[in-house]
Amino acid sequence: MQLQVTQENLNKALSVVARVASARNTLPILANVLIKTVDNRLSISATNLDIAITEHIGAKVIEEGAITVPARLMQDFISSLPSGVIDLKLVEHKLNISTDKYQSVVNGVVADDFPVMPAINMKDGSGQTWTINGSVLKKGLQQVIMAASSDESRPVLTGVLLQTQDGHLYAAATDSYRLAEKDLGPNDQDIRLLIPATAINDLLRILGDYSEAVSVTHDDQQVLFQANDVDLVARLIEGKYPDYRKLIPSSFAVEARLSRADLVNVTKVSSLFARESAGSITINVEETKNELSVRSVASQLGENIASATGTVTGSGSITLNSRYLLDALHAFSGDEVAFCFNGKLEPTLLRDPGNQDYAHIIMPLKS
Amino acid sequence: MQLQVTQENLNKALSVVARVASARNTLPILANVLIKTVDNRLSISATNLDIAITEHIGAKVIEEGAITVPARLMQDFISSLPSGVIDLKLVEHKLNISTDKYQSVVNGVVADDFPVMPAINMKDGSGQTWTINGSVLKKGLQQVIMAASSDESRPVLTGVLLQTQDGHLYAAATDSYRLAEKDLGPNDQDIRLLIPATAINDLLRILGDYSEAVSVTHDDQQVLFQANDVDLVARLIEGKYPDYRKLIPSSFAVEARLSRADLVNVTKVSSLFARESAGSITINVEETKNELSVRSVASQLGENIASATGTVTGSGSITLNSRYLLDALHAFSGDEVAFCFNGKLEPTLLRDPGNQDYAHIIMPLKS
Repeated sequence: MQLQVTQENLNKALSVVARVASARNTLPILANVLIKTVDNRLSISATNLDIAITEHIGAKVIEEGAITVPARLMQDFISSLPSGVIDLKLVEHKLNISTDKYQSVVNGVVADDFPVMPAINMKDGSGQTWTINGSVLKKGLQQVIMAASSDESRPVLTGVLLQTQDGHLYAAATDSYRLAEKDLGPNDQDIRLLIPATAINDLLRILGDYSEAVSVTHDDQQVLFQANDVDLVARLIEGKYPDYRKLIPSSFAVEARLSRADLVNVTKVSSLFARESAGSITINVEETKNELSVRSVASQLGENIASATGTVTGSGSITLNSRYLLDALHAFSGDEVAFCFNGKLEPTLLRDPGNQDYAHIIMPLKS
Repeated sequence: MQLQVTQENLNKALSVVARVASARNTLPILANVLIKTVDNRLSISATNLDIAITEHIGAKVIEEGAITVPARLMQDFISSLPSGVIDLKLVEHKLNISTDKYQSVVNGVVADDFPVMPAINMKDGSGQTWTINGSVLKKGLQQVIMAASSDESRPVLTGVLLQTQDGHLYAAATDSYRLAEKDLGPNDQDIRLLIPATAINDLLRILGDYSEAVSVTHDDQQVLFQANDVDLVARLIEGKYPDYRKLIPSSFAVEARLSRADLVNVTKVSSLFARESAGSITINVEETKNELSVRSVASQLGENIASATGTVTGSGSITLNSRYLLDALHAFSGDEVAFCFNGKLEPTLLRDPGNQDYAHIIMPLKS
């Protein structure tokens, strides 16, 4: 293998890909990135066996070849080099990297040992391909991913569900304490993909400001996202996802519409006094005062009451985890938010009064 | 106690002071800040018994008084409030904090229990007072503090020495592997203060961009810095400081003058390959090529050679810890740096060819 690439391109590709490689894996080669010439370009890949990411960059290929090298060293090294042309030349298993002022030799491991994710089966009819706008996909996934669980004891809840229903594609996630669902717009396919939240995080990073079409290809086992010269393959989570829709109440006895910034502020201040009680705050909505107030009590430290005014229908109070409420409020982008609930033991719904495509549910705490 | 302060002033004072308070201390009240009316102003203090910081802010005092409250809660809470006037009112041991939309009660502990640092003895002649420009002091301390040790087994090396010699004030620090000394300019006092590096870090934070005179008052036990409405008192370190001056060679067989940015860059790149060998890099200076090259070898990962050109007198090589070299290079501000040494076992000196007031010495590693 012998070729020339620019420091800018190689550095960008390594910063996208190398994060998936980990030295903590039991298989030592998973700490490496695969560098390979493909059709007069260079592909840079890393995998942790659940997720594989490959970026293709332009290169002047003099001699074809492939090698794997330590991901962290390679990334730190290339990012420290000045911009300009870098020469890569493989001599036995040693990758020689040089510019006019730097000469390095990085010891590699033969590419044959690098694990490859199985190809998606498009032939027997189980595979499907469709596209979605990158900005729409990114915004939607960002609005639901915080509700996915990190508790591996219930694997289905660690995923984000992409599912079609009545001609629309929805993204949803729940950890059983809260639930977020986003309508991603019309889609005429029949889709049901449960994707690990960790892969979604990598996808969000890759999408960046990419606003063109993302191609999505999948079979029963895997999904492939293609955007911005990057391929991300993720193994799907198996199992039955809870029928979350029945958790969302259809009507509410109490609704407070108020400035989202005000609600963020009173929640944040109240949460400081709720550290002792694992974030528990009590929200009181009063129709006669057109006011929502938040109360938190810390037996040792003191107590706090903070209030915000808005447009209120009905009165009542409910106890929530302040962190979940802040996460939910940060997922919206509008100026106003509606805070809706029925009784003390029923879920709270947050939504944007001017935009019905996103719903965020928080289960109450016992108070 | 009853008074009004602005959120801006109280927040700034807490951010300067509260950091010294720690919940990890054995004395629970040291996790609190002392809030006290003094001469129609409000003073906010915290201490860890080695360092005490007090900031004075303007206030509209309605009733005099004092209380201590949890530092972290108070800081987080006040910083979350919107800007504007805050009412503070003490009712028994409870501090009531209110604005138009927020009402909080923070449980306090009586101020009588708060430990006070002893006053500096100015009467018997052991105390001294002098001033120094804030910018000069800050820049000088920043250039030496990285060389202080964090190893508590030799307490004198955890300090920064401020000492007069031949009518000049010098700041110096050494951890026995490296040494930094800065000339802070003429001073006609007889000064010898060994100040804990932790206190110097707090002082640097307090100085910020303060460019006026800092007042320094001290006796045998303590030093008081006054700047920017803030008082910092630190307990001095006792013990004999090493006679570091004799470590600094007066002449050098090899000297390379080169761009500081170039040397930072080649050192940084080489340090990536030096992780296995605890940062060890070998620097080779060649007079015939007018070149300084840095070599690092990692048996597992590979090896690297990087070079930079400059003006060279003499030839030779020396092995250093790359982290110490990077720390030293970052302490300079000029474009050029001189890298000087004699033999493999003797100290390396870094200095600015255009400015002789700062010297940085690094002891070699065995190679």
